[in-house]
This record gives sequence, structure tokens and C-alpha cells, in this order.
Amino acid sequence: MNFNEVLDRKVKETEKIIEGYLPRETGYQKTVIEAMNYSFKSGGKRLRPLFMREFYMLFGGGKKVIEYFMAAIEMIHTYSLIHDDLPAMDNDEYRRGRKTTHIVYGEAMGILAGDGLLNLAFETVSNSFDVFDNPVKIGKAIQILGKKAGIYGMIGGQCADIESEGKDIAQDKLMFIHLKKTAALLEASMTIGALLAGASDNEIEIVEQIAQDVGLAFQIQDDILDVVSTTEELGKPVGSDEKNQKTTFVTMAGFEEAAKEVERLSKRAQDNLSALGKESSFISELIGSLINRKK
Amino acid sequence: MNFNEVLDRKVKETEKIIEGYLPRETGYQKTVIEAMNYSFKSGGKRLRPLFMREFYMLFGGGKKVIEYFMAAIEMIHTYSLIHDDLPAMDNDEYRRGRKTTHIVYGEAMGILAGDGLLNLAFETVSNSFDVFDNPVKIGKAIQILGKKAGIYGMIGGQCADIESEGKDIAQDKLMFIHLKKTAALLEASMTIGALLAGASDNEIEIVEQIAQDVGLAFQIQDDILDVVSTTEELGKPVGSDEKNQKTTFVTMAGFEEAAKEVERLSKRAQDNLSALGKESSFISELIGSLINRKK
Repeated sequence: MNFNEVLDRKVKETEKIIEGYLPRETGYQKTVIEAMNYSFKSGGKRLRPLFMREFYMLFGGGKKVIEYFMAAIEMIHTYSLIHDDLPAMDNDEYRRGRKTTHIVYGEAMGILAGDGLLNLAFETVSNSFDVFDNPVKIGKAIQILGKKAGIYGMIGGQCADIESEGKDIAQDKLMFIHLKKTAALLEASMTIGALLAGASDNEIEIVEQIAQDVGLAFQIQDDILDVVSTTEELGKPVGSDEKNQKTTFVTMAGFEEAAKEVERLSKRAQDNLSALGKESSFISELIGSLINRKK
Repeated sequence: MNFNEVLDRKVKETEKIIEGYLPRETGYQKTVIEAMNYSFKSGGKRLRPLFMREFYMLFGGGKKVIEYFMAAIEMIHTYSLIHDDLPAMDNDEYRRGRKTTHIVYGEAMGILAGDGLLNLAFETVSNSFDVFDNPVKIGKAIQILGKKAGIYGMIGGQCADIESEGKDIAQDKLMFIHLKKTAALLEASMTIGALLAGASDNEIEIVEQIAQDVGLAFQIQDDILDVVSTTEELGKPVGSDEKNQKTTFVTMAGFEEAAKEVERLSKRAQDNLSALGKESSFISELIGSLINRKK
């Protein structure tokens, strides 16, 4: 099997695992559950649970506990998209070719569905105490999840991002936004995978650096693609960053510098991955394919 | 000291404890933290952390672990108020005489501040693993928190409530809304307090029943007050339920039946409290004062 076939299989496996943690659409609260599941099932690359599982297996993990965290990280990612799409935020009517949650279910239910998924993420991981006999490790994993998703992670990045629209911002603030808004959940995914499988503190630090570099490179590549892609290829209006007067690494440092930075981050991530001294060819190819993607 | 003096002192103690868990207003994410703290500090009776602490002490608890959960339950209560006040939800400009969060900080930041508090609640309790040597109990407490705050608790009630506005609804749906929207967080407060202090399963069940009865009675009393109060006394427009064509226990069963139901629930809660066989005179008076309040 070539890389794309393996990836396809692994994405399907991931999808099957995480969808097993979705709530049944029943009871007086049926509508909010439908809205949550609608958003959760609307596709996407499932990168976060996929990476989490890969790093879990890389360090020899083989238990059910990881599934709870895989579902939770995708729930958190999904809630952030629902709330990002709201009229008061990015006001998007479509995502991945489907109508966004608040368009289908109304704005109030969109807010509630996001809240529901964020809450369900932590509820789900708290249920993993029932299947795993190392509660201290679960505690640490929940700590990482909370930190990387919250005001010192993703939400912090969203705040800075909202306040920066239409403004010239300095490079360190831009890096803060990228690191928090994009890289933080990847860091949570990869480090939780490593941690729960029993990786050492030193190994977890290396994994965190890999995640940061991949997240940053992915975001800068996204900014590059925003400029060069056609609407048809990307499925969203071209140059939307420019339209929103958004400062990006590309508008700041120029196209060529941006491409070089992606290259530099990518190389460091791959070097660190090799330094772990494990069979990581799939992860390596996955990182390569993400960073060098053309759409 | 009379009851009101003791209550006043305990509310102040509670306030001091939970405010110690608020994040510092610094960094590029400063604004969202300010919005979170603004909402959190806007007063209120701190009933949930107060009840949690009282039930913790009732069962002999005396450790720091409870503080993390006290802060968390108030964060969850606060986030739910911020999101409830949003234009797409109840569209309220004032709460407790102060401008609501989205009025002061804008709608996007209001959404984010709510998300931030919900996330911080779970982040905060996950940090309690560092100070308490019974991780399994913490795990159970987090489970309760997630369940009572989520789609099988408060969010479930909010969903049913939103869908019921302007409609005639059956009594069992109304009870579902009250139980989930109002009682669920009280149940979490009291049972987590009991659990972390080492109460038995049987005792925790009794405590949960007390919380349910108090929550229901409190809500029905609220509906009664909505009809009888003057705007000045209550600080919100009178008869707002009627204005919103909201079905309540009062509109459904009539004033007299509603008052009788409050009486019945109150008596059962007090009987159950006595059945625990502990020195609970303060809790008993607190429940009495809440249910019989005139505003």
C-alpha cells in the first residue's frame, strides 16, 4: 500500500473510533445533540485524533484509554469551528461545502451545540477513569487538554486573532496567534498520545516541539495557499485574508521568506522525529504531505 | 450571630476562595480574561460553591481539593449566564444591575469569554490532582461535573427551554427543563462536596435528592415571584415569563398549587437533610431562606 492508501485506512479507523463516542439523538435535548453530531460528522481530516493515535502507538500504547481522548480532541476542534463560524465571529455560512451549524439549526442552537461539545469533551475523558488503571496519568492528560484548549492555548489565540483583524500587528503577536490558535491543539494531540503510552518527560518535550513546528508550518503554508489558490481548488474565497485585512506571515515577510520558514520548520520537525529513534515513517510522510500540500 | 450574619461571612469566605482561582489579566489574551473576570466578579449569591463547601464540611471534609471544584462550579454557572445573555439567546443587556458581558466587550468576546470559563472550569479541577492523593475520587467528581453541566444536565435543559418558548408544553417537559436547567448544577455542587469528603453512595443519593428538591422549589418560587414582584424589587422586568409566553408551573397549575408544591418539596428536602443525622442547622436555614425568599 502506498502512503495515500494507508492514510485513507487510518482516517477511516480514526473516524470509526471517535464516532463511537457521539451521543444518541434522543430525549428533550435531541436538537442540540443533532446539531453537535451534524458538525462533528461534517468530515475534515481528523488530523488531531489521527496524530494522537499515531504518537500513542509510536510509544507502544495499545489500550482503550486513548480513544476517549481522541474523541475529546475532535469534539474540542469541532466546537471551536462552530463558534468561529457564528455571525459575531467569522460569519461563515459554509464549511467544507456544507452549511454551517448555526445556518442549519439557528444561532442559539449553534452556541449551545458548541458549548455541548466542549463540555462533552471533558465529560468523555472523565469516563476513561473507568477503563484505565493509571488515574494520575489521566489527570495529567486532562491538564494538558485544558491548558492547550483554553485561554493559555487555543482560546487565547482566538482572542488575539479577533483583536488583530484590520490592524498591523508585530511579528511576535502573529507568532502567538499561530502558536495558540493552530499549534496548541496539535500539541495536545501529540503529547497526550505520547504521555498515555508512557513516554518519558524528555520524549514528551521533543514531541511537543514537533507539534509546534508542524502547527506553525501548516499555518504559514495555509497563508501561502490563501494567496496562490483559486477559489475552486480551496473551496473558500481566495485571498480572504487580504480581504479581511489580515496580517499573515506572507503579508509580513513576503512569499519567499514564508516558503523558506515552512522548509526550516518542516526540517526541524522531521529531525526531531528521527531523534526519537522509533519506526516513524508514516508520521514522517504525514507531516510532509501536510506541509507540502497544494490545497 | 444570627443566620444572616453567618451567611454573609460564609459568602465572603466563598468569594475569597473562588476568586483566588481567576486568571491574571495579562498577555495577548488579556481582553478575554478581563471579560471572564468581569462576569465572574459581578456578584451573585455564590450559592453553588457555598452549598458545595457546606456539604463537604457536613461530611467532615477539610482539604484544599474542594476549592478547585468550588471555583469550577461557579465558572460553569458564570459561563452559562454569559451565553444565556447573548443576543441570539435571551438578549439581555443588564444582569444584577450591571451591563452584561457582550454589551461591555462585544459579542465575539462574550462568546469567547463563556468558552474560556467553561474550559477553565475543567482545567482548574484537573489541577487538583496535584494536591489530593485520591485521583479516583477526583475522576468521579469530574464525571459528575461534566454530566450535570452538559447535554444530560444544564445544556440539555437549555436546549429544551429554547425550543419551548412561545409554545404550550406538557408538564413532564417543563419538569425536565427545571430539573436540568436549574437543579442540575445544584446537584453537582452538593454531591461533589459529599463525594470528596468521603460520603457513602447511599448518602450521596440522599444529597442528590435534596439538591433536586431545592432546585425545583427554587425555580417554582422564581416563577411565583415573576408574577407577584414589582420591577424595582426584583431588578428585572415583571412578568417577563408571561411576556415571553413562557409556560411555568404557575401558568400551568395555578398560583395556589405552585405554592403547595414549593411547600412539599421544601419539606422533603428538610426531612432528607435531617435523615443524614448530622449537624446541619445552617444548611437547613439556608434552604429555608432560599425557598421562602420574597425577591
